Order: sequence, then structure tokens, then C-alpha cells
Amino acid sequence: MPEVKTLILGAGYVTTFFTVGLERLKRGKIEPYGVPLASFDIGVDIDDIKVVACVDVDARKVGKTMYDIAREFYKLRNVPRTLKDVVVYPGIEMGFVKGLFPVNSLDYGRSFQRSVEEMYEFIGKAEPDVIVDATTTQYAEPFNEYRLLEKAVMERRLTPTQFYAYLALKLMEEGKQISYVNLIPTPIANDYAYISAAGKFGGLVLGDDGATGATPLTADILEHLRERNRRVLGLAQLNIGGNSDFKSLLDEKRNRAKEYTKSSIVEDILGYYTPSYIKPTGFLSSLGDKKFVSMHIEYTSFNGVKDEIIVNMRINDSPALAGYIVDLVRLAKLALNAGICGTIYDINAFYMKKPGPPNSKNIARILAFERLISFVKTIADRRQLNVQQSMF
Amino acid sequence: MPEVKTLILGAGYVTTFFTVGLERLKRGKIEPYGVPLASFDIGVDIDDIKVVACVDVDARKVGKTMYDIAREFYKLRNVPRTLKDVVVYPGIEMGFVKGLFPVNSLDYGRSFQRSVEEMYEFIGKAEPDVIVDATTTQYAEPFNEYRLLEKAVMERRLTPTQFYAYLALKLMEEGKQISYVNLIPTPIANDYAYISAAGKFGGLVLGDDGATGATPLTADILEHLRERNRRVLGLAQLNIGGNSDFKSLLDEKRNRAKEYTKSSIVEDILGYYTPSYIKPTGFLSSLGDKKFVSMHIEYTSFNGVKDEIIVNMRINDSPALAGYIVDLVRLAKLALNAGICGTIYDINAFYMKKPGPPNSKNIARILAFERLISFVKTIADRRQLNVQQSMF
Amino acid sequence: MPEVKTLILGAGYVTTFFTVGLERLKRGKIEPYGVPLASFDIGVDIDDIKVVACVDVDARKVGKTMYDIAREFYKLRNVPRTLKDVVVYPGIEMGFVKGLFPVNSLDYGRSFQRSVEEMYEFIGKAEPDVIVDATTTQYAEPFNEYRLLEKAVMERRLTPTQFYAYLALKLMEEGKQISYVNLIPTPIANDYAYISAAGKFGGLVLGDDGATGATPLTADILEHLRERNRRVLGLAQLNIGGNSDFKSLLDEKRNRAKEYTKSSIVEDILGYYTPSYIKPTGFLSSLGDKKFVSMHIEYTSFNGVKDEIIVNMRINDSPALAGYIVDLVRLAKLALNAGICGTIYDINAFYMKKPGPPNSKNIARILAFERLISFVKTIADRRQLNVQQSMF
Amino acid sequence: MPEVKTLILGAGYVTTFFTVGLERLKRGKIEPYGVPLASFDIGVDIDDIKVVACVDVDARKVGKTMYDIAREFYKLRNVPRTLKDVVVYPGIEMGFVKGLFPVNSLDYGRSFQRSVEEMYEFIGKAEPDVIVDATTTQYAEPFNEYRLLEKAVMERRLTPTQFYAYLALKLMEEGKQISYVNLIPTPIANDYAYISAAGKFGGLVLGDDGATGATPLTADILEHLRERNRRVLGLAQLNIGGNSDFKSLLDEKRNRAKEYTKSSIVEDILGYYTPSYIKPTGFLSSLGDKKFVSMHIEYTSFNGVKDEIIVNMRINDSPALAGYIVDLVRLAKLALNAGICGTIYDINAFYMKKPGPPNSKNIARILAFERLISFVKTIADRRQLNVQQSMF
Repeated sequence: MPEVKTLILGAGYVTTFFTVGLERLKRGKIEPYGVPLASFDIGVDIDDIKVVACVDVDARKVGKTMYDIAREFYKLRNVPRTLKDVVVYPGIEMGFVKGLFPVNSLDYGRSFQRSVEEMYEFIGKAEPDVIVDATTTQYAEPFNEYRLLEKAVMERRLTPTQFYAYLALKLMEEGKQISYVNLIPTPIANDYAYISAAGKFGGLVLGDDGATGATPLTADILEHLRERNRRVLGLAQLNIGGNSDFKSLLDEKRNRAKEYTKSSIVEDILGYYTPSYIKPTGFLSSLGDKKFVSMHIEYTSFNGVKDEIIVNMRINDSPALAGYIVDLVRLAKLALNAGICGTIYDINAFYMKKPGPPNSKNIARILAFERLISFVKTIADRRQLNVQQSMF
Repeated sequence: MPEVKTLILGAGYVTTFFTVGLERLKRGKIEPYGVPLASFDIGVDIDDIKVVACVDVDARKVGKTMYDIAREFYKLRNVPRTLKDVVVYPGIEMGFVKGLFPVNSLDYGRSFQRSVEEMYEFIGKAEPDVIVDATTTQYAEPFNEYRLLEKAVMERRLTPTQFYAYLALKLMEEGKQISYVNLIPTPIANDYAYISAAGKFGGLVLGDDGATGATPLTADILEHLRERNRRVLGLAQLNIGGNSDFKSLLDEKRNRAKEYTKSSIVEDILGYYTPSYIKPTGFLSSLGDKKFVSMHIEYTSFNGVKDEIIVNMRINDSPALAGYIVDLVRLAKLALNAGICGTIYDINAFYMKKPGPPNSKNIARILAFERLISFVKTIADRRQLNVQQSMF
Repeated sequence: MPEVKTLILGAGYVTTFFTVGLERLKRGKIEPYGVPLASFDIGVDIDDIKVVACVDVDARKVGKTMYDIAREFYKLRNVPRTLKDVVVYPGIEMGFVKGLFPVNSLDYGRSFQRSVEEMYEFIGKAEPDVIVDATTTQYAEPFNEYRLLEKAVMERRLTPTQFYAYLALKLMEEGKQISYVNLIPTPIANDYAYISAAGKFGGLVLGDDGATGATPLTADILEHLRERNRRVLGLAQLNIGGNSDFKSLLDEKRNRAKEYTKSSIVEDILGYYTPSYIKPTGFLSSLGDKKFVSMHIEYTSFNGVKDEIIVNMRINDSPALAGYIVDLVRLAKLALNAGICGTIYDINAFYMKKPGPPNSKNIARILAFERLISFVKTIADRRQLNVQQSMF
Repeated sequence: MPEVKTLILGAGYVTTFFTVGLERLKRGKIEPYGVPLASFDIGVDIDDIKVVACVDVDARKVGKTMYDIAREFYKLRNVPRTLKDVVVYPGIEMGFVKGLFPVNSLDYGRSFQRSVEEMYEFIGKAEPDVIVDATTTQYAEPFNEYRLLEKAVMERRLTPTQFYAYLALKLMEEGKQISYVNLIPTPIANDYAYISAAGKFGGLVLGDDGATGATPLTADILEHLRERNRRVLGLAQLNIGGNSDFKSLLDEKRNRAKEYTKSSIVEDILGYYTPSYIKPTGFLSSLGDKKFVSMHIEYTSFNGVKDEIIVNMRINDSPALAGYIVDLVRLAKLALNAGICGTIYDINAFYMKKPGPPNSKNIARILAFERLISFVKTIADRRQLNVQQSMF
């Protein structure tokens, strides 16, 4: 199997952990814990994944290698030396991370048109099979129509993620087989503008918002209660963390973006409205990359009695998401090989908080896993046929 | 649809709650919360269930009506007056609950042979479609062969539950269509002696050990972790309660019976051995019928990071099990109507801690629910055909 | 002992619970649980307390009796009929609760000067010994000087609580012996403008912000860790509730007022800075008056090992504060009888989140209780002497 | 100040951690976190403590140095090389640890009389100022009279700890100034036989059962509730661990010894009986030296409302106790220098689960700390006087 060339947007903790863990996995230094489909032969191996390029706008990272960033910035140990080959290239910032850190971006002190061209050229030269977007959370509304997306590009009324995904569409249009995996809340797989264009151009968009922490577990616990016909009276899911993701959520608008992808889950699964509070609550530096989650669920059981469940988690969110990327890159390539384009709910439903296409329901993750396995098996069965087909 | 005549073994909190809740449900006084299949039309309605008889060996209950027991013994409110019709008849005790409470049983001060006949006659006259066993937990080993079971009956070397289930087999042998639903840890659906005889006689045995509290949730959380390939390092599930069930577990042997049905779940679901501690921990009178459960799970995620989940539950176990009985009685009748005999894993896997037949695996409850629904639909499809068939 | 006439500002859940509980206590209908000094003979008995008047600005309450409010508004049961004598009088609103509920206040559609006079006259006629302020949380800065307070009154630049407390000062100035007990975060006992004036006029101010829920327990847990020289690395205290107090905190400014009184506690007790996050987190209607609190503390122990403590609480905040009022009214009267004026740290330190006078430290509540008991004993010893003296 | 020669009984995790941590503290390699009085100048410095000898009966440890044990047995890092000087000497086993590990003891294959003499000689030569007992938990009853203790020695009817403490008494009788610090549940400071003899001979006994984990925190939380007059309805404290201490508690008799020291605390502090369940619950190897604690408290507050507190802890018990030893050795020496003999409640009440002398009450730890500080200050004040005096 040839390499799966992977381009990364955002050299943050998640993608750093991904690149480090991936190389260590390839060398057999670690067990593939946290990679859901590690033991499944899906036709694209972990060993095939190769990170070919990385883009960021943090001036402290641009120009450095992933090796340096892993060791100096994130204090990781056992960093494989192969990461010295991946140098961080400046991205497009568009004023969206102002104040969070010093910026070094292509669009800084240069015409936007010019920087767009440079970015496009850089991505094109990298010849990525898969683009993984793990940039900083930005609030945005979907465009719904490709026409409106193009207009917004002209007028520069879009966020970096929407812009990167647009560049990916342009490359697809030129005939490149590319998958765009969106791990942040910005609607891409939930925007018809992107998935219909991708479907038309033979590309793939997966997303939105990687689901690693408390939300997928909440989904399964809610399903557990639903199946017993226990009436959920209310649900609170509080979480606090110490990494830059949480720090940036102090910004109200970013928090709202997060909240949107999370709270739909309750009604989607239960099938009725119930009061719920699910959002990133605050920032506490001492937690570092770990997150503390506290969940309270109260429900009515038989003959009106009331029960309650309290869940506390102390979890490393970024590594969990990094493990998912190993799968998502393989699945994205697998799907493209099989000629599936647009977006794929059967993948999104397991890995994403807000699975595309638009208006899709969140389902219990244990059921989503069943669908994922079934999808993978179906592909495996027809791998020879390789029919061009849009799932969407 | 004709009545589903139900005979109850054990007038404890669970069955009292069941009879009270059932009558209130029929009257539309409560929502069917806690009854998993309440909204499914499975061909046997909740309204069809009728409790026709009840057996117990507690001298404080024998001779009283379920109405009195619900009000005076368990201090329940809103008890329907129809429960005045169900009078508790003395059962067989065989020395197994000595010391727990004052005993009034058929086998007290009378030849065993004589009391067996009376018991058999009583049950026969009640003409039950379904017998629900919710007696006190007793430790027992399976007989495996019907021949050995019969020998044990002769020699009186068996527990009350094994004995009641044997009487049910005798009635089946006489051509009565009976389902025996075993909610306690004693192996009945996990004993070939019972299920093969039931299969032969055209009867049904469901069991063992109703799964309402922390164990099913643990199953789903373990599945959640397994699907993400997170390596569980260890699991502790501590639980303490204040009802007579917990009090009786202070007796080491009874606790062992409980432990057996619970701990197999971890390896069954994860597929590998991991240290675990799952057993009823202690008795605390102030908790009353509520149970306090605390669970700690530690696991390894991507690139070797460690996470932990803590779950605390404050739950009413008995009402939850009472809600299950509403389903189990309907399903037992449904299966018999459809001519299925022996035992049915697709039912047991969802409702039971130790689902029969012997050596069956525990699976995640969310997956078990899928199988249950699929089973119910299959039956519904062929309801007209009514083929006599043993699932086992 | 003559009656302790008590005037209540704010007919909310706390004060309703207080008036109901107080009357039931007097009748011997309940045990005095939740009243810290119930078993101490401090010279002012619970039976002496008499609620003589109540003020509110909620149009749904003004004109109603506390009996009606307790039953209809808060759905309390067992409400003593004596509460029919307390009718809610309209208060001063000054635009601070706009949008939270329909308003009926003295300053609505009338000159401010006029409404001030009416309010003053109403309070004066009630002849209160103690005024208890449990109005809605308002953000405010201290005036520090009485002169500046008077100026602010002229210019109407103050909050209702600051205004009510000012009226109390005016009555003190006229020779009335009055204690003002401030249970909300607005700085009164933390404002030199009030406590120095009260000291001069022979009155008393206690406050600020009643400390019932998670914060006092946090204080004691922090002291517990401090005494073992365990280094606290960080503390998160998340809490979510469903009553109007939490709803109003959705307003950023009110939340800030709350945060201010809460977060000083960590450094006060530990003696060093450590990252902490303590604030009301959100609103979840299903919780009703109950609050769900979740706390996470991580610390370093001997030879560098790290431990963590997680506390989850499901508490009724309002009743807890209601129980404190029973004490605070008695203590306020006791202190005035003993001739102590200004403010009293030994009382505030136990009952308040932000104990006055200004710049006072928060101390562990178990130590504060020692001081409280010692204070009460000292007063008891010199009750005969009755020396006029300012503690401040 | 001269050295405080310390002899250690039991080369387990606690004392290994103590010796390693102590040496690192002396070298300034770590902060004195977990040492309660680290910042207090009590006249005996941490630098003065010198471990001169160590005794154990585990064949895998006897003859090895503490350096080897720390590194090989407990996998500790950064072990100071000075620990190479402390070689583990065989102790007296008397059949009490049979089955837990391979035994190498003085009383193995030798007359008891002979081994007693050797042990006595060994301790005598070590010339300890303080003997710290951290041997394996053994169940025992107090002798109450010295005469009965001597008789039991003759008849060999006592546990190793009772025997070691007896040897200490014999040395005191010979005029050696020795303190015996008992960290295990065996009653020593709770046995008049020991404390009266120690008082007579000018020696000191501190104990029993070091209080580091959940129990002291429980004490402070109970005091917190008591001071608010909240009625505790019941308390469950479950804990599970993975070290040899927990493993040995699977033995019923040892568990009972532990339970005894723990459960008295509830009534001692609350002043009334309430249902409680406090005992080591089980063993889970994956927890290693960490312990998982889960506590549930339910109480009634004002006007009859019910609240609940749930505490979960993930703690390292052994290091915490190791940190206490640093204090206890210093305090033991301080007290002897000041001429105080017998036992000292003001020390025991803070550091011990079952503080001696017999029939002493457990008090909240925050209050015990106040007494401890006051005791230390009193000694400091009269350090010059040095009056011989028995506190008991």
C-alpha cells in the first residue's frame, strides 16, 4: 500500500501528540491503545500514514520542526527523530487568534490575495491525501450554498478553517483525491456548501468536532437510560481544563461554538426535551492538558422513584483525539480509494460531536460503532469493485 | 388477549413494588418509566398481566394481602385496593433463611413430602402462565443433569429456588405452558438440568439474576472503552445498601453467590483479563432501599497516557427490577405463545446479570437491547405461524 | 426576654424557608437541625424571634402574606397560619432587577425622594431590632467613607442593599438599636462607610454573603490540607443550581460579585497563591432549589507524590441559609444588648463568605466556630456589666 | 542538637518511603510537603533524625540494605546512597505473618527465649531514642495491667508489636530514654499496661494507628456538620487499595483490628449514634500503593431538608504516613527531652486513628492541630526548666 500523505493544520497539543504517537506506534514502541480500529484490517495500515506537512500561525512554532515543538513546547519525552523532517509552515490567520499568542502568518503584512495563492501552492505541492484540521476553535455559521461560500471568500468573510477547507475543495476540483478531516466545531461536514462540492469533485469531508471526552460517554449513558425508559429529569455536564483550548474558550463566542455541537446530543438520543447544561466551564492552569469533568444526571424510574448518577472524569483529551486521528486518516483514505465522496455519516457518527451531513442526529456511540464496523466491512467486501459513488 | 396469570415467589420489596406499580400503571396513574419495552407493541399488553398468587416464608407476611404488605411493611403510598385480593401463601423454606426473620412455611413442623405436595397443588391450582422468582439469594451449584436434580430433590439437597423451579418443570411435564423467570443469582437458566427439561416439556426458563443497578451500566461503560481500544488497568465497583438483600449478604456464602454473577462481566466484555473488584460491599441501614454505588476505572489511552473515570450512583434497585418484571412477564408469555421453549439468550442478555444458557457471555447492554428488539420483531413477524421450536 | 423584632428584605426562598421553619421550630414541630447554636443558651431564645415585616419588589409577591407565598409560590407544606400576619410591603428597586420578574416597588412611577421617605417611614414604624437582607445579588463597590455614601444617596448611585443599609444607619443615628444582617455579596460589613457609621451610632452591621454551601466546606478541607503541609496544586469548585439565584447569575456582573466573595478564601487559608476556580457555573432548571457542586483538589504530599480529592454535593442552599438566620438574629440582638457595635468578625467569620470588616481573612470554619463560641461565652460572662463598647 | 537515633520496625513501603524522603529532605532535594510541622521550630530539627537500624521478618528483605529495598523492592527512584548503611536485621515473627510472605526471623528454628535475648541485645546496642513500629497489622486485645503483660510474655501469648513494645519498656526500666511510636492498630498507647509502665520508667509511648487517609478528613467533615447542627443520617466510607496492607486485610481478623480503630470516630465527634460503615473494603492490585476512597454522607438540615455529600479520594497512603513519621520522631524526642513520659494525647489526637490513652475521644483534626500547636508552644516555653513530669 502506498503512503497516505497527511497534512496537518494546527501544530497544537493534539496533532503533536498524534505525530509523536504515530511514529512510536510504527516503531512498535507503544501499544495502539486509544486507536479504536487498531486491530481491524481495514486495508490502510497505520504504517502507511506519513505526515508530510504542518501549518500553524503561532510565531513560536512557525519554522520549527515538530520534533522541537514536541520536546520544547509540550515537554514530551521519547520524541522520534523522524519528526525533525516536518517543519511548520505559516498559515492564514485572518485576525481570529489575535491576543491568544504572537502571530506569524502568511496573511500578515501582505495582500490577502497573495497569501491565498501561497497557501494554495504550499498545500498543492505537499500532495496530501488527507488534510487534518485541528486549528483553534472559531465560531462560524454554515454557508449552505457553494455560491455563497465563494462570495464570502471574495469578501474575506470566513474563518481560517472555512478557508482551508475551501482550498481543499479547489484542489479536489482540479482532480486531486483529497479528504478533509475537520476536528473543530466550525461547520464543514455540517455545511452543504462543502459536502455537496466535495461530492461533486470526488473529494471527501469528515467532521465536525472530534468527540473524545465526556460527550461520547454521555451519549452512551443517555442511551443506557433511554433503553430502560428511565425519564431523564435533567443533565449537567461541567468541565474544566488547563490547556490553551480551554483558555481560548474564555472568549464567549468560541464557547458558544462548542456549546452548539454538544447540547444537541441530549434530545437527539432521548427523543424528548430535557433541561441540560453541557459546556466547557472554565480554565484552571494547574490541570494542564488534563480535564476534570463532572456530570450529574437525575431520572425517574419505575413507579416514580428518583435516582441519580454522578460521573467524574480526569481525562487527557488531546491524546484521545490524537488516537482518533490515526483511524480517521486511514478511514478517509479507505473511503476515497473505494470511491466514496461527499461525507460519510457512518464514520462521523462515531468520531464526531456534531456528525455531518447537516441535521444528522447524534446517536449512542456504541450503536455508532456498530455502524462504523458495518461500513468498514461493506467497503472491504467491495474493495475490488471500486465504484465511484457519492454517499451523500 | 387473555390474562397473563402471574405467580410471585417472594413478597419482598421488589415484587411488592411490582404489584403496586403494575396496578397503578393499568389505571393510568403513573407513566411507564422504568419499563424498557413499555412503548413497544409486543402482542402482550401491560394490562393483560394479572398477579394471581404470591408465596413467601416470612411469618410477618404469610396470610396478609399484598395491599397490607405494601402499606404496613414497606410504607408505600397510593396502594391500589385490588391488591387486597392477593393473599400471601406459605412457601418452602428448607432452613435457608434461618435467622433472617421469623419463618412460617409449609415445611415447618410437617413432613417434607407432605409440604411438597401441598406446594405443588397450590401452584397447580393457581394455573400460572409465568412464575416470577424473587426470593432471598441462596448460594447453589448447578446440577447440569435432570437426573441429578431429581436425585437431589429426593435427598432434599437443593435450595428453595431450585425446588420451586423443579415444581415448575413438573407442571410443564404435565402439559402446562409455564415460564419460570428467575431474578436471583441461583443458577436456573444457567443449569442445563432446568433448561433442557424445560425445552423438552415445552416450557421456558429465563434468568439468572436481574440486572438493574450498577452492573449493566458498568457493562456499557466497559464496551465504550473497549470500542476505543482503551486499555482498562483495573476496575473497582463498591456498593452498599440498607435493605434486607444487603443485610443477608453479610452472610459470606450469599455474597459469594452474588459475586459470581457479577465479576464475569469484565472479561466477557473487554476480551482480556484485568484486575477487578465487583461485589456488594456492606450494609448501612440509613440507606434503606437505596443503594450507594461507587466505581473507579483506570485505563491507558493513546501514547500511554492514563485516565480515570469515577461513577457514583444513588439508586433504587428494587423499583428498577420491578419495572423489568413488567417486561419479563410479557416476554415470557410472548415466547411461549410463539412456541419457543428452553431459554432465550436474547432476552436474558439484556435483563440478567448472568444470562443463561450456561457459558453465555455478558455483552454490553446497549448491544443486548439491539438483540432484544430484533428478537421481539422476529416473533412479531411470525406470530401467525406459531411453530413449536426450541431456541436452545 | 422581650421579642426580637425582625424585618426581612426579600421574600425569596431563603427568607420564606426561614419564616416557615422558625414558626415550626417555636411550635416544636421540627428539630432545630441546621441552626448551629440551637443547643447553646446565648441569652436570646429562638422563641423570642418575631418576624414583624417583610419587603420585596416582585409584583407577584407584594401585597401577599408570607403564608400565601410559602404555599403558592414555593409549594411548601405544613406552613403555620401565623404567617398570614406578615404581608409583603413594596421595596425600592432602582432598576436593578429589571427583566428578572415583574416589578412592583415604591420607586416605580413616583419621585425617588418620595419613595425614600415612605420606605424610611415603613421601616421606622416596624421598629425592627434586626433587619435581614436577603435581596437579589447586586454588584457594587464599597464607598469607604460615609461622606461618599451620603453623596451617592443624593445622586442615586447605589444599589438597593446599599440603600436599605443606609436607611438602617439613619435609624441608628436617631437612637434606634438596630442590627443589619447582610446575607448577599454587596459589601456592607466590608465597607468602612457602613461599619464606622454603625459604630458611631451604636448600631451593628453583620455580613457579607451568607456562607452555607460548598465554600465553608472548602475552607475546612483547605485547612485540613494546610495543617498537613500538603501543597495544593489547584482547586476547581463548580456549582450549578436551578433557582432564581442561579438564574440571575447568568448576568455577568452579578456573577462577578459572587466570585469576588468566594475566591479570596483559597489564599486566605493556604497562605500562598494557588490556581483556583470558584464560581457559580450555570443554571439548570431541573435542579430546582437544590444545587449540584463538584470540587476537584490536587495536591503534593510527602516525597513529591500527588493525590486528589473530589467532592460532589447535592445540597439545599436556601434552607441552610435559613437555619443560619435563626442564629444571626439572636446573635445580632445579643451583641446589641451587650453594647457591642460596628461589626463583629467573630460572628462574620463563621457565617459569612466575605466576613467584615474590610480586609479580614477567611479562616477555616472549624476555627471560626471556636472563635464564635468563645465570643458568645465572653458576652455571657459580662452580660450583667453591659458596657458600651465598639469591637471595631 | 545531637542526633535522634531512630530504629524502625518493619521495612515496608511506609518506612522505606520515610527513610528515602528523610534523606532527600536533609539534602534539600525535596520540599517538606506532607510533614505537618515542617515549618515549626520545635527544638528538634529534621536534620537531626538518623535512622540507625531496621528490623523485618520478610526473608526477601532481611540482610538487604534500605537502599536495595527502596530500589529493587519498591522501585523508588532517586534513592540516596546513605541508605546503604542501614541493613535489615531479622525480627520476631511468632507465627503472625504466616502465608503472607517467606519468613526469616530470629524466632525461626530457635528457642523463643534465645531469640528474645538476641532481639533485646540488638535493640539495646542500637541505642535508639525513638522506635517506630510500622509492622504488619495484627489483631490484639489490651492487657490493661503490666503484670498480665509480663505473664503473657512468659506464655508467649502476645503479638510481635506487643512484644517489641515490651522490650522497649524493659530498656526504659534500665534507664534508657526511649519513645515507642506505634503506627499500627494493635493497642499500645491504648493499653494501660504499656503507658503506665512507660510513665513509671520515664519513657514514652505514642499511638495507635497512624491517621493519614480518609479517616482524618472524615473527622473534619463530621465536625463541620456537627457545628452546623446538621443531623447525620448515615455515613459510608468505602476504600480499596492494591498494596500488601490491603492484601493482608483480606484476613478477617486483621480487618476487624482496623475497623475497631476507625468506627469509633463517628460517635466521638457527632456526640450521638448514627449508622456508619467504615472499613477497608477490598484489594485491587491495579491500584498499587494508591487507594481509592468513596464516602457518602447524608444529613438533615433546616426544616427537615436532606442533603448529601460524596467524597472520592485517590490517595497515596504510605507517603502520607511517612511524612507524619518525620514529625512523630521529632515530637517524641522533644517530649522526652522535656521530661514528659507515659503518653501524650495532644500528639496522638492529631496523628493517630485511635489516640491513646485508653477511652480517649477522637476529635476533629483541625481542633487536634490546635491542641498540638499549643502543646508544642508550651514545651518550647519551658524548655529550660526541664521538669520531670508524667502527662498521664
